[in-house]
Amino acid sequence: MGDRLRPDFNGRIHRAHEERERAELRALVISSPTNIAYLCGFAGTAGMLVLSPGEARLLADGRYEAGARRRVRDGSMGPVEVESVTRRYDLTLAAVIERLRARRTGFEAEHVTVATLASWQRATPGIEWVATERLIERHRMVKDAGEIAILRRACRGVSDVARGMAAFVSEGRTELEVARSIDEALDRAGFDEPAFPTIVASGPNSASPHARPTDRRLVQGDLVLLDFGGRLDGYCGDLTRMAAVGQVGAEARSLFEAVREAQAAAISAVRPGQEAPAVDTAAREVLERHGLGQAVLHATGHGLGLELHEAPRIARPDPNHTDRLEAGMVCTIEPGAYVDGFGGVRLEDDVLVTADGCEVLTDAPRDLVVV
Amino acid sequence: MGDRLRPDFNGRIHRAHEERERAELRALVISSPTNIAYLCGFAGTAGMLVLSPGEARLLADGRYEAGARRRVRDGSMGPVEVESVTRRYDLTLAAVIERLRARRTGFEAEHVTVATLASWQRATPGIEWVATERLIERHRMVKDAGEIAILRRACRGVSDVARGMAAFVSEGRTELEVARSIDEALDRAGFDEPAFPTIVASGPNSASPHARPTDRRLVQGDLVLLDFGGRLDGYCGDLTRMAAVGQVGAEARSLFEAVREAQAAAISAVRPGQEAPAVDTAAREVLERHGLGQAVLHATGHGLGLELHEAPRIARPDPNHTDRLEAGMVCTIEPGAYVDGFGGVRLEDDVLVTADGCEVLTDAPRDLVVV
Repeated sequence: MGDRLRPDFNGRIHRAHEERERAELRALVISSPTNIAYLCGFAGTAGMLVLSPGEARLLADGRYEAGARRRVRDGSMGPVEVESVTRRYDLTLAAVIERLRARRTGFEAEHVTVATLASWQRATPGIEWVATERLIERHRMVKDAGEIAILRRACRGVSDVARGMAAFVSEGRTELEVARSIDEALDRAGFDEPAFPTIVASGPNSASPHARPTDRRLVQGDLVLLDFGGRLDGYCGDLTRMAAVGQVGAEARSLFEAVREAQAAAISAVRPGQEAPAVDTAAREVLERHGLGQAVLHATGHGLGLELHEAPRIARPDPNHTDRLEAGMVCTIEPGAYVDGFGGVRLEDDVLVTADGCEVLTDAPRDLVVV
Repeated sequence: MGDRLRPDFNGRIHRAHEERERAELRALVISSPTNIAYLCGFAGTAGMLVLSPGEARLLADGRYEAGARRRVRDGSMGPVEVESVTRRYDLTLAAVIERLRARRTGFEAEHVTVATLASWQRATPGIEWVATERLIERHRMVKDAGEIAILRRACRGVSDVARGMAAFVSEGRTELEVARSIDEALDRAGFDEPAFPTIVASGPNSASPHARPTDRRLVQGDLVLLDFGGRLDGYCGDLTRMAAVGQVGAEARSLFEAVREAQAAAISAVRPGQEAPAVDTAAREVLERHGLGQAVLHATGHGLGLELHEAPRIARPDPNHTDRLEAGMVCTIEPGAYVDGFGGVRLEDDVLVTADGCEVLTDAPRDLVVV
C-alpha cells in the first residue's frame, strides 16, 4: 500500500481527542469495532480504545494482542498503547479508568448495551459515565482523499460486475444460481468479500425489497432485481440494477421508468448544504406523482464507507438526526417502488458529494437490461 | 421441510410468555433478531416482537411486512400479529405499549443500546422499562429434537470438508487459496454460507488465534491451522483441524499433542450438571502441566446454535454468568496454545450434552494431517 493511501490515523485520533475535550471528558471509551478500526486500524472482533489526555490505549485480549503490538511497531496501525486483557474487559477497563482518575468518562451510547454499561458501572464505583453520540461517526461521514480513492475503486468494481450482467442473468436459471454468479464476479473483480448477501429477486419476488434468492427459475416477462456489493480494503461499494427477461408488460415498464425518474431527481438534489431528507423527498415526490406513494417501502439512501449503512441517512425527517450533506460524503441513492403480488423496481448508485453538487461513482448504465 | 423438523414456534412463544409472567411484566419487547427468529421464524434485519397477555405482535417495516404476513398465513412463521411500522420503530412501539397499557415493560438489556433505550423512554413517558437478561437465550441453550437434527447435519458437513483437507492444503499454495477451497467445499457440502470468515493460518501466522488468511505460501515444516464453519437452515457447525506440511519439528509435534490431550480432557468433563468453567479448567490444567499456561489465549468453548457464539460460555468463572451444562446443549470444545513468533495449535469439535455425558457430533479424525 503506497504512502498516499495510508490512513491518517494520527489525524483521526487527534480529532477524536478534540471531541473528547469538547465534551469535557477526561476519558472516552470507544467500543464500536468500526470506530476503533477507523481510528487506529485495529481489526479484532473485540477491543476497546480509551482516549485520555495525551494517550490512546487499546485494550485487546490474547487473541489479538500480539498481532496488535506487532502492527503498532511496524506502523500499519496507529500510535496506540496496547494493554493486555487477561480475564475480562470490564475489569481491565476499570483498572485503566481508575489509573487515569477519569471521574467523567464518556461512552458511545449507540454502541454500548444497557447490560454492558451496567457491568462497567458496577466495576467503577464513583465514576460518572457520560453518554455520547456520533463523536467518531460525524468524522467518518466525510471521507478523506485516501478513503475516496478506495471507494472509487469499489464503485468501479461493482459497476463492472453490473456491465457483465447479461452473461449470467438468463431464462431458466434460478435466482440462487444468478446470485452465485454475481458473487464469483465480485471475487474476480478483486473484492475481498461480498459486502452483504447478494439479492436476486425475480417476478413477484422482487416486490420484497430485501428478498433472499430462492430456487425460482427466471421466466419470460420477469423483472429481475439485482442488488449486490463488495468490500475492498474495508470499504463498501453497493449497486442495484434491473433486468427484464424478454419483453415485460406495460406496468413493469412504467414502474421502471418512474423509479428511474425518481432516482434522477434525488441525484439532482445532492449538493453540499442540502438537508439529507430533502433528497429523500425529491425521490418520493416523483413516485407519488406517478401514483406510487403506497409502493415506497424504504428510505432513499444511506452513507457508505467502512460500514454498508452509515451516516448520513437519506430518509424522512427524524428529529433525532438532522444530517446535512457535506463535500466528501459518499451515499447510496436507491429509491424503489414495490407492488405486492406483482413485483418491484429499485435502482441504486453511489454518489460523492462534491464542492458544487455530486459525482456519481458507479458508472454502469441505468437501463432496464433486456436478457 | 417435513413436519418433524418444523420449529415449535407455539411452544417457544408459550415459554417466552411464561418468562414474561415470572418477571411480572405486562409487555416484553424482544429486539434481538436471533431471538425473534427463534420465537417466530421472522428473518428480517430489523423488527421487534412485543409479547403481552395472549398476544405476540411483530413490528415490521415496509421491507419485510408483506413477506411476514404471507408467511404467517402459510404457517411457515409462528402465530404472530404483524403490525406495520410506517415511519419509525420507536413511534410504533410507543403506540403498541400505550394501547396495551403496559406500565411495566421489559426489554433485553444485552441487546438494547443505551441510546435506543433513551429513545424508547422519550417516546413512552410514564412507562417503567425493566431490564431483563437471557430470558430467551436460556431456552435457546437447550436444543430440541429438530434443532439437534439440523446441528447433526451441519457437524457432519464440516467434518466431511475436513476429511477432504489433503486435497487442497499443499506446499506452495497461499493461505487465501486454501481458504477459498474450503469455502467452495462448504458450498458443495450443502451449506447456505460460511458461518464466519474462514481462518487459514500457516507457520508463524498460526500463533494468532483469529488470523486472517494472507498471501503467504505454505512451506515445508509449516503447521497450518484451519478453522471454518457453515450455516445450515440457520444453525452453525464449527470445526478446527491442523495440518503439517511435510515433517514438522519436535516443538510443533509436542504443541499438537498437548492440545489434543487438553481437548480430550475437556470433552471428558462434559456432562449434564457440570459447571461450564470446570470444562474450561480441565483443558487449561493439561496445558499448564505441559508448561503452556502462558500460551492459552482464549476460552475453551462456546454454545453453538442460531448464533456461532451463544450461551453457555465454556470459560473461566465469571460472576455475571454461571452456566451449568444440561442435556441438549451443543457446544464447541476448542482449546488452543499459541507461541508468538513460532506458531499455534487449536483443535475444535462440537459436542452435544447427553443424559449421561456427551456425544461428539463432529467426526473427522483429530490427527495432525501430514500433507
